[in-house]
Amino acid sequence: MNVKLRPEKYLKYFYLPNLFAPKRTKEILSVNPTVIPHREEAKEVVVTVFDYNADSLEEKTLSGVGDCFMYKTSGRNTWINIDGLRKAEVEDVCAHFDIHPLVIEDILSINQRPKLDESDNSIFCLLNMLYYNEEKNSVEQEQISIILAKEVVISFQEDARRDVFTPLRDKLKSPLSKVRQRPADYLCYSLLDMIVDNYFIVMEKLGERIEEVEEQVTRGVNTRALAHITQLRKELIVLKRNFSPVREVINGFLRSESELLEDRHVKYYKDVYDHIVQAIDLSENYRDIMVSLQDLHINNVNLRMNEVMKVMAIVTCLLAPATVIGGIFGMNFDSIPYLHNEFGFWVAVSIMLLIPVIMIWLFRKRGWF
Amino acid sequence: MNVKLRPEKYLKYFYLPNLFAPKRTKEILSVNPTVIPHREEAKEVVVTVFDYNADSLEEKTLSGVGDCFMYKTSGRNTWINIDGLRKAEVEDVCAHFDIHPLVIEDILSINQRPKLDESDNSIFCLLNMLYYNEEKNSVEQEQISIILAKEVVISFQEDARRDVFTPLRDKLKSPLSKVRQRPADYLCYSLLDMIVDNYFIVMEKLGERIEEVEEQVTRGVNTRALAHITQLRKELIVLKRNFSPVREVINGFLRSESELLEDRHVKYYKDVYDHIVQAIDLSENYRDIMVSLQDLHINNVNLRMNEVMKVMAIVTCLLAPATVIGGIFGMNFDSIPYLHNEFGFWVAVSIMLLIPVIMIWLFRKRGWF
Amino acid sequence: MNVKLRPEKYLKYFYLPNLFAPKRTKEILSVNPTVIPHREEAKEVVVTVFDYNADSLEEKTLSGVGDCFMYKTSGRNTWINIDGLRKAEVEDVCAHFDIHPLVIEDILSINQRPKLDESDNSIFCLLNMLYYNEEKNSVEQEQISIILAKEVVISFQEDARRDVFTPLRDKLKSPLSKVRQRPADYLCYSLLDMIVDNYFIVMEKLGERIEEVEEQVTRGVNTRALAHITQLRKELIVLKRNFSPVREVINGFLRSESELLEDRHVKYYKDVYDHIVQAIDLSENYRDIMVSLQDLHINNVNLRMNEVMKVMAIVTCLLAPATVIGGIFGMNFDSIPYLHNEFGFWVAVSIMLLIPVIMIWLFRKRGWF
Amino acid sequence: MNVKLRPEKYLKYFYLPNLFAPKRTKEILSVNPTVIPHREEAKEVVVTVFDYNADSLEEKTLSGVGDCFMYKTSGRNTWINIDGLRKAEVEDVCAHFDIHPLVIEDILSINQRPKLDESDNSIFCLLNMLYYNEEKNSVEQEQISIILAKEVVISFQEDARRDVFTPLRDKLKSPLSKVRQRPADYLCYSLLDMIVDNYFIVMEKLGERIEEVEEQVTRGVNTRALAHITQLRKELIVLKRNFSPVREVINGFLRSESELLEDRHVKYYKDVYDHIVQAIDLSENYRDIMVSLQDLHINNVNLRMNEVMKVMAIVTCLLAPATVIGGIFGMNFDSIPYLHNEFGFWVAVSIMLLIPVIMIWLFRKRGWF
Amino acid sequence: MNVKLRPEKYLKYFYLPNLFAPKRTKEILSVNPTVIPHREEAKEVVVTVFDYNADSLEEKTLSGVGDCFMYKTSGRNTWINIDGLRKAEVEDVCAHFDIHPLVIEDILSINQRPKLDESDNSIFCLLNMLYYNEEKNSVEQEQISIILAKEVVISFQEDARRDVFTPLRDKLKSPLSKVRQRPADYLCYSLLDMIVDNYFIVMEKLGERIEEVEEQVTRGVNTRALAHITQLRKELIVLKRNFSPVREVINGFLRSESELLEDRHVKYYKDVYDHIVQAIDLSENYRDIMVSLQDLHINNVNLRMNEVMKVMAIVTCLLAPATVIGGIFGMNFDSIPYLHNEFGFWVAVSIMLLIPVIMIWLFRKRGWF
Repeated sequence: MNVKLRPEKYLKYFYLPNLFAPKRTKEILSVNPTVIPHREEAKEVVVTVFDYNADSLEEKTLSGVGDCFMYKTSGRNTWINIDGLRKAEVEDVCAHFDIHPLVIEDILSINQRPKLDESDNSIFCLLNMLYYNEEKNSVEQEQISIILAKEVVISFQEDARRDVFTPLRDKLKSPLSKVRQRPADYLCYSLLDMIVDNYFIVMEKLGERIEEVEEQVTRGVNTRALAHITQLRKELIVLKRNFSPVREVINGFLRSESELLEDRHVKYYKDVYDHIVQAIDLSENYRDIMVSLQDLHINNVNLRMNEVMKVMAIVTCLLAPATVIGGIFGMNFDSIPYLHNEFGFWVAVSIMLLIPVIMIWLFRKRGWF
Repeated sequence: MNVKLRPEKYLKYFYLPNLFAPKRTKEILSVNPTVIPHREEAKEVVVTVFDYNADSLEEKTLSGVGDCFMYKTSGRNTWINIDGLRKAEVEDVCAHFDIHPLVIEDILSINQRPKLDESDNSIFCLLNMLYYNEEKNSVEQEQISIILAKEVVISFQEDARRDVFTPLRDKLKSPLSKVRQRPADYLCYSLLDMIVDNYFIVMEKLGERIEEVEEQVTRGVNTRALAHITQLRKELIVLKRNFSPVREVINGFLRSESELLEDRHVKYYKDVYDHIVQAIDLSENYRDIMVSLQDLHINNVNLRMNEVMKVMAIVTCLLAPATVIGGIFGMNFDSIPYLHNEFGFWVAVSIMLLIPVIMIWLFRKRGWF
Repeated sequence: MNVKLRPEKYLKYFYLPNLFAPKRTKEILSVNPTVIPHREEAKEVVVTVFDYNADSLEEKTLSGVGDCFMYKTSGRNTWINIDGLRKAEVEDVCAHFDIHPLVIEDILSINQRPKLDESDNSIFCLLNMLYYNEEKNSVEQEQISIILAKEVVISFQEDARRDVFTPLRDKLKSPLSKVRQRPADYLCYSLLDMIVDNYFIVMEKLGERIEEVEEQVTRGVNTRALAHITQLRKELIVLKRNFSPVREVINGFLRSESELLEDRHVKYYKDVYDHIVQAIDLSENYRDIMVSLQDLHINNVNLRMNEVMKVMAIVTCLLAPATVIGGIFGMNFDSIPYLHNEFGFWVAVSIMLLIPVIMIWLFRKRGWF
Repeated sequence: MNVKLRPEKYLKYFYLPNLFAPKRTKEILSVNPTVIPHREEAKEVVVTVFDYNADSLEEKTLSGVGDCFMYKTSGRNTWINIDGLRKAEVEDVCAHFDIHPLVIEDILSINQRPKLDESDNSIFCLLNMLYYNEEKNSVEQEQISIILAKEVVISFQEDARRDVFTPLRDKLKSPLSKVRQRPADYLCYSLLDMIVDNYFIVMEKLGERIEEVEEQVTRGVNTRALAHITQLRKELIVLKRNFSPVREVINGFLRSESELLEDRHVKYYKDVYDHIVQAIDLSENYRDIMVSLQDLHINNVNLRMNEVMKVMAIVTCLLAPATVIGGIFGMNFDSIPYLHNEFGFWVAVSIMLLIPVIMIWLFRKRGWF
Repeated sequence: MNVKLRPEKYLKYFYLPNLFAPKRTKEILSVNPTVIPHREEAKEVVVTVFDYNADSLEEKTLSGVGDCFMYKTSGRNTWINIDGLRKAEVEDVCAHFDIHPLVIEDILSINQRPKLDESDNSIFCLLNMLYYNEEKNSVEQEQISIILAKEVVISFQEDARRDVFTPLRDKLKSPLSKVRQRPADYLCYSLLDMIVDNYFIVMEKLGERIEEVEEQVTRGVNTRALAHITQLRKELIVLKRNFSPVREVINGFLRSESELLEDRHVKYYKDVYDHIVQAIDLSENYRDIMVSLQDLHINNVNLRMNEVMKVMAIVTCLLAPATVIGGIFGMNFDSIPYLHNEFGFWVAVSIMLLIPVIMIWLFRKRGWF
């Protein structure tokens, strides 16, 4: 009979842990911005240069960072994009463009909080590009450093394989595009805009995941739902950690009085600012929905459990009087009334049936089931 | 006997999911202000023009946006209302009235956060009109863009079928109305005022819905109540998302130093500001009440469940001694005392009855039921 | 036997709903400051005028609002108190005293948020007087509008039957009182002071009610306690909704640079400000206590329920072995040991008693009861 | 058998209410700063005067407040400490030292929020001294009013029996102490410093109490623990109500530009400010710990309850098959297999034992106990 | 049979308290910054002096504090590090370097909140170095006081055995290091930087601990998990208490206009500021994760318990009908149908088996297990 209880069915509920990646928690929690040596040197460094003005464009993929120095004085706007971080190269570039040593540390750091740093001749900002890893259902981040100097924008990316700046490259190729016709700070704005826009794509993916979990919660009692919710709440921490500092970064651009930023471009930075504020609002909505969902899930689990227990208790309770009556007429006393009566048995059985019926009637009248 | 348990009665509790619209969650969460192509082009664009001053009024429904350009220099105040958004038309109008390209993007965007944007020659603001869909019990939003320029107000609506500005049209027809006698910024105020006033109508509908749910919660144990509460909390997110940015928008009008806004109208904008602040306060009250209600619901469910389980446990427990006694005298030992006694049976049965009575007396003395 | 279970005793728990007034929720939630027509015209309008200076006092109850206009130029301070709001009368008075039309709308509105409005020649403030309705255990509010103009204070009350300004009238009759010897803004301060002081009386009543509920919670398990707590939390929303805007109103008086307010009276407004801040603090304390109380209540209900269930489970569990033993020796096998033994029965019964005793001993040793 | 259940043991859990003092709640909630008549006149008023400068000290206990007026013009610093509040005396003193009538009201009020009030010739501040009543485990407060005027500090205390200023008196007697060598505002600082320092003593006592409760929670299931936690949370409200206004008071001293305060003493007020900020931080930590503790307590109660119920359910469940088997072979059918078999009984009993053993083995394999 | 229940297995759950250290709570809560005498005098005071400029370095370990006074006028930068706090020595040093007596009190205090104090000739700051004690799993703090004066940095540490400044000593020995080539405020920055960097090491350890607990929670039902969570939340309080005041301290350096701080070093202080802000963010993430984890743990415990109870209830319920049937045919009526039928027994037993099978089928159809 035990076989029918299908222990495996219950047992499986006990194997939920593999869902969680405590390793993921570790990734989220192990943040130490000051310990530089942890960063592995990139195997490969790819340097691409766009040297352009409204009239002409030169695009090159360079073999080493040294080759890009000549563009400093090209008289045109230059975008130097460096994929892959290697200490020597970063120091080399920064030295050449007069970047403060602390900025070099920031570029090479890991898990740095987004930040903005202005100096006399350059503006440095560090952000994280976010990607949604659909296999692991996790939000991954790649550190992007952008340096805006006179007629030059230098961008550093950790990983050359993922590049969100491709559409910008296409725009650069078109001589009529705004980015070609405007100075370097418009290019810098374009980079920021692309990064922030990409946040919404990540959030959309997360939104779909939340929807999936909500369906699980509402369709039935998925015992893993809370694990999924916990996991999603963890990913929301990654968003939160990135979004509000980015707002500060963009706000820094807006309030900056640097000569590198043209006044007529404030409108564009204001636009990015509006987007990041909306992203923050939205991520708070996500958070609210997760909390509602968790409440609902716990309530559903309890409701279902309660119903099961109630039915079991009622069945047990309904049969108890019959057991007592059976016991009464099973006693071995010499003189038990009706024992020798022809209909005694039927009367007893009838009472056995009648009592539960009355009980059911009473219980239902009280609205218990 | 199983039939009497009426499994359908319990089973129905398991079909609550259809209440929730995870699709609704998706609608609320899928917000991407930067992806323009998602917007479907409106099938129809209706342009209505009111060209007026204190003395005269010209009202026209135009076939195309191009026909409204002539009003730019009419010397009277002009309200151009465009129902239905089509990229080409929006660009056309904006180009003619010297509106910044980023504003065009905003007008055409979807799910944009309410915002205010001032430039030298115009003030642009974007808000959402809210409607309460009584069938789906959801709050729907329609994006409204308003541009205030010199002697011109241009308003863009997504959907021509729903128009809340009708009362304003009536007012415009009366030469004595303030809106006729005052410059264009008073018209702009009137539009904002109508939108914000409409929020209260939506909230009133939501308030009635909350009242219904509260009645369900208090009248009995409606197992779907939590689903309703969760749904309402989701709709409150829509309100929250709209209200606080609108406050910022109105505040922007108040602090604006644009020449387009007359000083004597500050009082009116202050009035709208007071209303939106009250709407925010009120929506927080809604939130508080929802939380109380959820607590109360969960408590009621538990209370009722507990009472049922308690009675079942007590019945089972009261009958257990009788079962034991029945078992004792049902044993087949040769010598069992009183078995052959004439009153043995009655004594046993009396004890069976007496023990539960004593138990009940004890339990009641302790206040257990 | 079912009769002894006293179903009514349990059933009554299911009739708690009538406690709640969802209607109350409706009252609290249905707030629409912009819809004027909802206000019923007052049946009766009572106008009382106090025209005074340090030397003389004229007190009159007027038949119509028109008769009070002559006091505008009396050269003395005038307090015009109008009980009962009728559109025509309010417009009449305001027109005569040069009050802005938006202020008229505010005076006639319902459920308006407390607000302050300064213009060149007058200061307008709107507050709610709060009353505690002991029958319904609810906080009722009556809208009070106060206009301070040069040498004139006009106050509008909704309801003539409840008047908290009586003590002020007595003070006015005494020529030595400060209010007689100082200009009109001191009278305005006195009105505000009385309204805010009255808040504490309402809070005291609420405090007594909280105390009652706390006694119910701690004295025993009152299943209605949570309903009472929910109801009280609803009333606290009414307080919260009034108090913080009133703080802003008083702060507005403090920061005002209007000539209508004398510098030496700042101290008095500061005093009212301190009181309203204390009221806000206190209402947050109420909130905290309600939350603690709810936690405590839920815990008590669970504790009591758990104890009952534990005892029931233990009794059932203790008797189970006896049932088994009874069953064993009740089997009809031919050869069952000890069946024919003289003391067999007593041994069996002893074991039946012994096992529960051992179980009790074990359970108690483990501290289970 | 019922006797063995020791009903008293369970019953005692139902008598927890006496722990709570709803009266305490009343004390905390009944705050009305505007109703003066509630204050009982002190039976005794003790006036002590310290008239000092760096060279000389005169200490006197006066019979009436009138006798202290002569020190106003002593040319030395004077500290007038008045223990016990009587309306006539307070008015007398304040009139003599030119104190504003509103300040008199504040001094005589009850449960006043700590406040600071500057006028041209004096600084008035009102604080509460806190005491921990170890018998009632409650935080008691005594209102202290301090007036700093030119060369004079006047302090009012409600209760002469408790005096925390004794150490200051000792310092005053030493001619080398700073307080002797500096002007009156240093004395004022010393009083504030002593009051704030005393807060830490109260918090230390509360900390010890929290530790006791934590031990109760962790050592075993003390059903009263939640009551203790609720009580402590109530006391924390008293702290919160006092600390943040005191911070404002001290901050007021820091920002004050009164000539009564010497610049070189800012450092000392800054020190008091640091202390009160630390007290606020600490009281928030207390609050956090109480919340954790409550979670832990509720979890422990549930855990213990669950374990008991689980064992009971398991015992009942293990014995159920034996009951069934006993019933099977106890039926009175003519032909039941093995009934006449010699070992039939033993086989049945073996099965009765075997099934639970198998069940235990299965349950344990699944990790259920 | 009771032996098989393995009481020890359950009993062990009742011995969880020893996990908690209420003593730890006491340590966290017993904070009294004003009571100096509690500090034990250090047994040993070690004074090390680094007197350096870009060209030369003199390093000395002195026998007494008096010997370091001569470096005041060395004309080079001097770092005096004093390990071990003794009242006399601290007063001696401070007197010599013209430090305000209140600073001395701060240095000697215990559990002081991090603070910054500027005077004309020096900047004083007090921070806590944090250590993670892996044995006790607690965060320990050591108070560090730093005084920056003209060409002098004096640092006081409580405990000479733990010194995090060793790497700085190594840097000082290299004539090319920045710290050698720059003035004293760069040294001060280096000390602050090291302290803040060390916070991340502590957080990393805590992060590992959280990961361990998460694994416990997800791997199975560790009944002690909540105790671990509570303990970790207590440690997070220690972090919170330190981090936000440290942010204020660093911010104070940034806004300071003291001549002791060179403008070109603002960048470095800004860097430390970024780090401490990141630490604050991170500790809030920790807090969020702890809350999620606690929810998950409680849910897991309930889930597991529910499953066990459900199976027990189902087994009990399935066997109840068989008991009733056994009882029916065990009654001693003369005429019971089928009693004398050959297959009567088998029919009865079949029904006994059939009913549970039907019940299981019904229950499974309803998705109850």
